[in-house]
Amino acid sequence: MADLDPEEFRRLGRQVVDWIADYRAGLGERPVRPAVEPGSVRAELDKPLPELPGELSGLLAELDRVVVPASTHWQHPRFFGFFPANASLHSLLGDMLSGGLGAQGMLWSTSPAATEVEQALLDALADELGLDPAFTFAGGGGGVIQDSASSAALVALLAALHRARPDWRERGVDGRERVYVTAETHSSLAKAVRVAGLGERALRVVDTDPTTLAMDPGALAADLAADVAAGLVPVLVCATVGTTGTGAVDPVRAVAAAVATTAPTAWLHVDAAWAGVAGLCPEHRHLLDGVELADSFCTDAHKWLLTAFDASLLWVREAHALPAALSITPEYLRDAASESARVVDYRDWQVPLGRRFRALKLWTVLHGMGLSGVREHLRGHVALAGELAGWVRDDPGFELAAEPSLALVCLRVATDRGPDADDAATRSVLERVNATGRALVTHTTVRGRYVLRVAIGSVGTRDGDVAELWELLRAEAGAVRG
Amino acid sequence: MADLDPEEFRRLGRQVVDWIADYRAGLGERPVRPAVEPGSVRAELDKPLPELPGELSGLLAELDRVVVPASTHWQHPRFFGFFPANASLHSLLGDMLSGGLGAQGMLWSTSPAATEVEQALLDALADELGLDPAFTFAGGGGGVIQDSASSAALVALLAALHRARPDWRERGVDGRERVYVTAETHSSLAKAVRVAGLGERALRVVDTDPTTLAMDPGALAADLAADVAAGLVPVLVCATVGTTGTGAVDPVRAVAAAVATTAPTAWLHVDAAWAGVAGLCPEHRHLLDGVELADSFCTDAHKWLLTAFDASLLWVREAHALPAALSITPEYLRDAASESARVVDYRDWQVPLGRRFRALKLWTVLHGMGLSGVREHLRGHVALAGELAGWVRDDPGFELAAEPSLALVCLRVATDRGPDADDAATRSVLERVNATGRALVTHTTVRGRYVLRVAIGSVGTRDGDVAELWELLRAEAGAVRG
Ligand SMILES: Cc1ncc(COP(=O)(O)O)c(C=O)c1O
Ligand SMILES: Cc1ncc(COP(=O)(O)O)c(C=O)c1O
Repeated sequence: MADLDPEEFRRLGRQVVDWIADYRAGLGERPVRPAVEPGSVRAELDKPLPELPGELSGLLAELDRVVVPASTHWQHPRFFGFFPANASLHSLLGDMLSGGLGAQGMLWSTSPAATEVEQALLDALADELGLDPAFTFAGGGGGVIQDSASSAALVALLAALHRARPDWRERGVDGRERVYVTAETHSSLAKAVRVAGLGERALRVVDTDPTTLAMDPGALAADLAADVAAGLVPVLVCATVGTTGTGAVDPVRAVAAAVATTAPTAWLHVDAAWAGVAGLCPEHRHLLDGVELADSFCTDAHKWLLTAFDASLLWVREAHALPAALSITPEYLRDAASESARVVDYRDWQVPLGRRFRALKLWTVLHGMGLSGVREHLRGHVALAGELAGWVRDDPGFELAAEPSLALVCLRVATDRGPDADDAATRSVLERVNATGRALVTHTTVRGRYVLRVAIGSVGTRDGDVAELWELLRAEAGAVRG
Repeated sequence: MADLDPEEFRRLGRQVVDWIADYRAGLGERPVRPAVEPGSVRAELDKPLPELPGELSGLLAELDRVVVPASTHWQHPRFFGFFPANASLHSLLGDMLSGGLGAQGMLWSTSPAATEVEQALLDALADELGLDPAFTFAGGGGGVIQDSASSAALVALLAALHRARPDWRERGVDGRERVYVTAETHSSLAKAVRVAGLGERALRVVDTDPTTLAMDPGALAADLAADVAAGLVPVLVCATVGTTGTGAVDPVRAVAAAVATTAPTAWLHVDAAWAGVAGLCPEHRHLLDGVELADSFCTDAHKWLLTAFDASLLWVREAHALPAALSITPEYLRDAASESARVVDYRDWQVPLGRRFRALKLWTVLHGMGLSGVREHLRGHVALAGELAGWVRDDPGFELAAEPSLALVCLRVATDRGPDADDAATRSVLERVNATGRALVTHTTVRGRYVLRVAIGSVGTRDGDVAELWELLRAEAGAVRG
């Protein structure tokens, strides 16, 4: 029943650190996306588990032989797909420490430090983001690290349901609840609505401004009013700061005003999964205008804030909102500290029971880079996006599909042969660029049109990387035009 | 915008590895539980975030000064509370590698290796646990790593709801759904029922056998039949293998038979969060008897299988059951490989969208220890529990509160002054033992009586540690008796 002894761990841990350092150092040379057939990795590994212990070197060799060549390299400097999922080396240090401590922070008493470091860090970060003090523990609210923005939206919805109907815990949902999003809202909201038992019929898709793709607060007010008049119950409105497709920003202040006038008991959740962290830079803080009127606010440290997945930051205005909705205490979890009501038990702020000491990896980032370093990271990418957008504007063979938003540039190929031809050309250019392995971009559709998204934000992305992407785009567009 | 460069990471990573090795080596000398006042850690850290980068050594010093003294040490050799949350050093190696790769395995294409290693490993592990081949991908089912058994129960419930009512995704729940548990079932089932919008009224608490505390299949059949007759819809039955309180084992085969006869469309979920991994030892495999008749089976690698949180293993009999319930595909997640239907997209098997490459830490455990090492780990703890149970039986000052189950021993102090006095004495002994800092135990209630649980299973627990606990228990019981 022997684990590694600490001395062996010292030796093997170094091998792993070296493996990681080598992997990261060599990333730029690898194809971003593997050329691999479905099933080929499984086929390589299709053998019984070993009966006897094996050397770590053997496993590292398997990683090199089987895993790395079949990986999409999210930390690659020319990964421009989806949104970034920064796993900075700073954050890995904290994540290792968290594993080393191996604490379970479900209750305060099951590891006081795990809980209070998270509280302190989220209070301090709320200040730096310019969030209203009401979102801090010091101010009666508080922050919590969820695994993902999807789960953050789900627990916000559960708190909203509880607030809307105090007997929700006993009687469940009743079919009259409604949730307001736009066509640009992330699908995690629709998933939360499904998980919570409301069904798709509970989703109201509010109109957006045709140019900005931002939620139309007038349309929201009308939808809310119509539903209230029909005896339905507006439960939650989700405003997005930085939509997944194009980085659109819903007008949070006007949305909040519509809610306050028309359905004042509804919960206002602000999903700023990707863009929210930009609030650390004063010049981008206007993006969070109106958030002080919301009930909850979420931004992912694991997207653009350098912190390895998973670390989604959720702040709520009422510290008891989540526990009121989620707490269930069987005898084996009863605890004197909990009953004193002087502590936070984070298990009641989330769906899972167990929880890892995630705050450490965020702490190593903030400590190791300082706020100045984090701002430089964010600003660097925004500047690169501005440069790319300029090149797109100046090139008649391309056009911007939306105004650039922070470090996200949405573009398409312009063919002179009409929208369908543009869409087809854009799709082929995307496929051809990705096939080179030298960069990875992904797509979306905007008002029915195919759009190539360039999300700048990998921890290793530098000037030359965006320039290289631009060269690739131009070359492949040239080839597609024939 | 500079992360650490790989060479700096090599240097700092070593410091962290050394810190972890030192921490683990010195664990036995620390008090298991800290003496710390609510708020004291927050007070220490109540300062603005640093503007400038700091040295790692400064942060490690803060850990030593503030965090470690305020931590409950879950990896301590005399941690006997709750259930173990093994974070073996073997598993940390894999977890570091996973952070190093920094992959997002939400879709197959976003990192084919992350998905297929997980598939391969869960297929192989299913074989070693003696699970029916129907639970493997090769057999039409498949396994997935969830963050926790709580989330596993939730997604099983969602799949069950979808199966029970094909329009659940559109219309949500309707209030007729019923879910069957016992008073011993883990509270995560009640939480899942709440999250899914069913409300507590949907929970049917089936009677248990008064001696074994196992679900009474006759009572289940009667409850199911009564509900069906009343027009209600049995959606999910949860059988537990190894309850949280006392390690009771519901008779899965008889439970399955009751379901098959009375409510054949209901989903049978087996929650073996703690005990399930014992199926790796042939002598304990009988615990999983009847699981071949279930729809889903869950056991936590992060409890007793040496794998750092989070890694809950869930197998389902129908590979499309979870995607059918959970999939939602906006344009930005559309993908050729997904549409080919030749791949698994694990985002559709869970609530969150993003996912870490968790299979690596399980792989480093299985590779580094071999199945023989894992069995030795499990058997060692079961043997220690047997020894402790023997001492309890032989000591007139104590009694077993339930038959020991694998490595869990439930006991109480016997005072000769009746049940209330026994309960009070047991409670004081628990508090006094924990206050020494030399061991940590937690409690539950069984049939209204206070019970002290000794859950053996920390990666570092050896003979001497259980003997030391026994000495402490006897000494404190002596002191309490006066
Ligand atoms: C706006 C927005 N919200 C939510 C999410 C979901 O993020 P997570 O993976 O943290 O659930 C995303 C992911 O891209 C997003 O862009
Ligand atoms: C039987 C049982 N099920 C579920 C759980 C919940 O585990 P997790 O923290 O993985 O959600 C536990 C935790 O102790 C348990 O004992």
